[in-house]
Amino acid sequence: MKVSFTLAALSAQLNVPVRAGIGPAYNRPADALIIDGLATLENASATKLSFLSNPRYSQLLSTCQAGAVIIHPDLADKTQLPCLLSSSPYVTYAKASQLFAAAIAQHARSEGQTGVHASAVVSPDAVLGKDVCVGPHVVIEAGVSIGDGSCIGAGCFVGARAIIGNHCVMYANATVYHEVVLGDRVIVHAGAVLGADGFGFAFDGQRSVKIAQLGSVHIGSDVEIGAGSSIDRGALDDTVIGDGVKIDNQVQIGHNCIVGDHTVICGCSALAGSTRIGRYCVIGGGVGITGHLSITDRVTISAMSMVTQSITKPGLYSSGTLLQESAQWKRNAVTLGKLSELSRTVRNIQRQQDQDTLPPSGNDYDEHRRD
Amino acid sequence: MKVSFTLAALSAQLNVPVRAGIGPAYNRPADALIIDGLATLENASATKLSFLSNPRYSQLLSTCQAGAVIIHPDLADKTQLPCLLSSSPYVTYAKASQLFAAAIAQHARSEGQTGVHASAVVSPDAVLGKDVCVGPHVVIEAGVSIGDGSCIGAGCFVGARAIIGNHCVMYANATVYHEVVLGDRVIVHAGAVLGADGFGFAFDGQRSVKIAQLGSVHIGSDVEIGAGSSIDRGALDDTVIGDGVKIDNQVQIGHNCIVGDHTVICGCSALAGSTRIGRYCVIGGGVGITGHLSITDRVTISAMSMVTQSITKPGLYSSGTLLQESAQWKRNAVTLGKLSELSRTVRNIQRQQDQDTLPPSGNDYDEHRRD
Amino acid sequence: MKVSFTLAALSAQLNVPVRAGIGPAYNRPADALIIDGLATLENASATKLSFLSNPRYSQLLSTCQAGAVIIHPDLADKTQLPCLLSSSPYVTYAKASQLFAAAIAQHARSEGQTGVHASAVVSPDAVLGKDVCVGPHVVIEAGVSIGDGSCIGAGCFVGARAIIGNHCVMYANATVYHEVVLGDRVIVHAGAVLGADGFGFAFDGQRSVKIAQLGSVHIGSDVEIGAGSSIDRGALDDTVIGDGVKIDNQVQIGHNCIVGDHTVICGCSALAGSTRIGRYCVIGGGVGITGHLSITDRVTISAMSMVTQSITKPGLYSSGTLLQESAQWKRNAVTLGKLSELSRTVRNIQRQQDQDTLPPSGNDYDEHRRD
Repeated sequence: MKVSFTLAALSAQLNVPVRAGIGPAYNRPADALIIDGLATLENASATKLSFLSNPRYSQLLSTCQAGAVIIHPDLADKTQLPCLLSSSPYVTYAKASQLFAAAIAQHARSEGQTGVHASAVVSPDAVLGKDVCVGPHVVIEAGVSIGDGSCIGAGCFVGARAIIGNHCVMYANATVYHEVVLGDRVIVHAGAVLGADGFGFAFDGQRSVKIAQLGSVHIGSDVEIGAGSSIDRGALDDTVIGDGVKIDNQVQIGHNCIVGDHTVICGCSALAGSTRIGRYCVIGGGVGITGHLSITDRVTISAMSMVTQSITKPGLYSSGTLLQESAQWKRNAVTLGKLSELSRTVRNIQRQQDQDTLPPSGNDYDEHRRD
Repeated sequence: MKVSFTLAALSAQLNVPVRAGIGPAYNRPADALIIDGLATLENASATKLSFLSNPRYSQLLSTCQAGAVIIHPDLADKTQLPCLLSSSPYVTYAKASQLFAAAIAQHARSEGQTGVHASAVVSPDAVLGKDVCVGPHVVIEAGVSIGDGSCIGAGCFVGARAIIGNHCVMYANATVYHEVVLGDRVIVHAGAVLGADGFGFAFDGQRSVKIAQLGSVHIGSDVEIGAGSSIDRGALDDTVIGDGVKIDNQVQIGHNCIVGDHTVICGCSALAGSTRIGRYCVIGGGVGITGHLSITDRVTISAMSMVTQSITKPGLYSSGTLLQESAQWKRNAVTLGKLSELSRTVRNIQRQQDQDTLPPSGNDYDEHRRD
Repeated sequence: MKVSFTLAALSAQLNVPVRAGIGPAYNRPADALIIDGLATLENASATKLSFLSNPRYSQLLSTCQAGAVIIHPDLADKTQLPCLLSSSPYVTYAKASQLFAAAIAQHARSEGQTGVHASAVVSPDAVLGKDVCVGPHVVIEAGVSIGDGSCIGAGCFVGARAIIGNHCVMYANATVYHEVVLGDRVIVHAGAVLGADGFGFAFDGQRSVKIAQLGSVHIGSDVEIGAGSSIDRGALDDTVIGDGVKIDNQVQIGHNCIVGDHTVICGCSALAGSTRIGRYCVIGGGVGITGHLSITDRVTISAMSMVTQSITKPGLYSSGTLLQESAQWKRNAVTLGKLSELSRTVRNIQRQQDQDTLPPSGNDYDEHRRD
């Protein structure tokens, strides 16, 4: 099950040079070093590759037991360990992690089934590309198209006329409703639901009349969607997720939202309907964004913020109150409930004080003083 | 796959009159106009029906390319397009959307399977009504009853002795635990879980002892439950969801809650255990309601509010703080942590000021002044 | 389907003594009393066992129709009903509830299937212990180990090399990714997802480069995980959930979190990555905890709090603002946005007032006065 590379092979595949280990311990050439995994600076053993991304942690280098370290050239003199020199150690680590994962995935495939599992129910009207893997108990309805190399995990459902691009992965028990479109290299984690009805009703005075959701969901390429997340289909037009968008677990995206390319949405955040998020935004965890807003590009919103107005200026935004011991919190919370009165009181005091400190000649405020 | 109606047919089915188009462009009778879909005022083409619900958008009529528009009679003179005249355009639009969806669903059914799919595992002790559709890989346990015309989507699980009413729809991979009861025309979206154990434990000083959840869930008719939502079974009595309740995605309803008829609960909201919500309430998205509260009828709670006390008066309620640029937010948040002290300071200032501005004769506050 | 016990049998199994009923109504010995269920004090009928846990509700005893009541010895004189005397009535009730549930589960098993259902897809390389029950449409991949007496519900997926301990229960449609480890007696509710990829990306200036999540999830014994909850696998090391931890529905636990033994996490809470929670903590519903924090033992956090800093002292903590009528809320929220300015104004007023009330001799503040 173990995957391994020589340091030279990693250097070639990651396109970063090797710097040999320094000192008498390194009598063998670094290129031949066998690396069989990645590990943190604290936990790495002699066959692991580690990385230093944040210079704050550079003191961990002195005790690090790793076989080699991905490091910025400017910091390489802080360690005698063999290094892979990268101007972006964190990105190089990310790419290295994919090498180990890809190899592991190959193992997984050779031990699992390929092609369409006998228990899957695939409509004869569905079109499957080359090297498509359909797991046990999958259901693929009529008119579905699945691109080359895509893998549909056990128990997934793909509704009529949905389109899945090339090299997508759906993990177990994910659901794609009819007519939903996924680009290439999309990853959908277990339990995610794409294309359920948007939440639309017209209240007739007595009851909520359902508005059938006749749009769909259109997801770009290189998108990842976390476990248990849901993206609703549009009422009339489509809900649209741009290229490169990364969505964490348990995120809810309402109907007709438009999320710009390369935006990142952390866990448990929710977008109400018809909200438009720009490109390269970062939405922290647990954020709630009410409907029909527009958020410009490169906006970062901190965790658990409540967004009730459009944002037109890139930047970092927050709401919420800080954690306190509950007794103290309660006093403040009660006072907060009377904050506008407190503010009015302060204005009155200030006005009074301004009068008191004025010279005793006549002025606009004097009439108050005579009361 | 295209569904279409004449405008006359729509008029008859929606029970709203046609007003013909005005001007030379409309030489054919409006009744014969073919409508093959719905669209917004901006996006509608010549075979689409659009609608004007909010008069704010009436200027969009001048450039609208729709075949016809659902509109209030009072606004019909603002357009030359053929109209369906309705006193409630949004409700009429909702009903029209169902016509197109119902027709689409008929198509779907004729291309999909009917009856019980060969791969479904249905207990011989389950009772299925007329025209029940059971999808691939469904599991229906002993003692289950499913009413006429209901459709159980691929991969759903219906536990022992559960009762599903007539004309219900469960989308793929939804789960109904044992003994849960659904009324008629209930829609359950993918990944929803009805009847999992409520979260009840007795702490014995060392560990949490599980309280078996011996109640069930009772859901009324005309209820919709969104993707990934969960409604827990009761500890002893049942959790109860009234008729006409609409529940969005990823809503969590704790054990023994009672939700009144026609209440609407938006996405990601959570009700802790034993909370009672009235009729015709609207719970915004991301709202949290702590346990054992009672909320009266016709209460609206805005998104992301925290509810920690019962509400006895109908109205609109909110909590939370507004989004700000983070630097400004931080200053305020830190100050907020000392708000009760600030309030005390203001009271002291005010008391001092009151003394300073009093005439120099004796009064109740004078003793403070002598200090 | 009915399960019943004599009061004597319950007394023996729960290890609490019987006190006979008082008065002429109780001519039969209490030991022979047949109890066929549990009920609240309000709803109990003559064959039900009820309980009084909170002395506040003791007035309900006078009208209670139960066959018997679990009660603290000190309160037993408040009722003539037969009693089970317990120093911890709530814990005894919890244990009693399990007796009824266990018996019901036996019924369920005798009416359901045992062993591996014919439709399940179990790798020949998986190892199943004694009395393992594998439901319909389950998928168990190569290298999986499932301990004695565990029950895998319909439609569940257990990925390659995962380890499930003894006497675990997975309800329908739950997903366990490859290599995840569960201890003994773990309960996983429907739709939960264990071991999906943590949310890790390295931004290269243009796009988010995926960091393969090479760690796993390690869950202790006696853990319960609610419907729709997700626990992500670690980036390099494992995400770890201690023994006895209870996790409610729709909770999200990010990669590399460590949750201490016997901590309780209520519904819809979320832990960002690499957060460490101590033992015996109680995290209320809807709480958000940002990443890389450390929370010590025996911390209780109230519902919907936002935690952005480590907590080093046991105690009760809160954040958030109280619900108000929206008009009042809005005034306060707007004022809150200027709170730091308000605070500055108050400080200025106070300084001015301090000067005004000083004797007219020179002092440190006088220079301000001369302006």
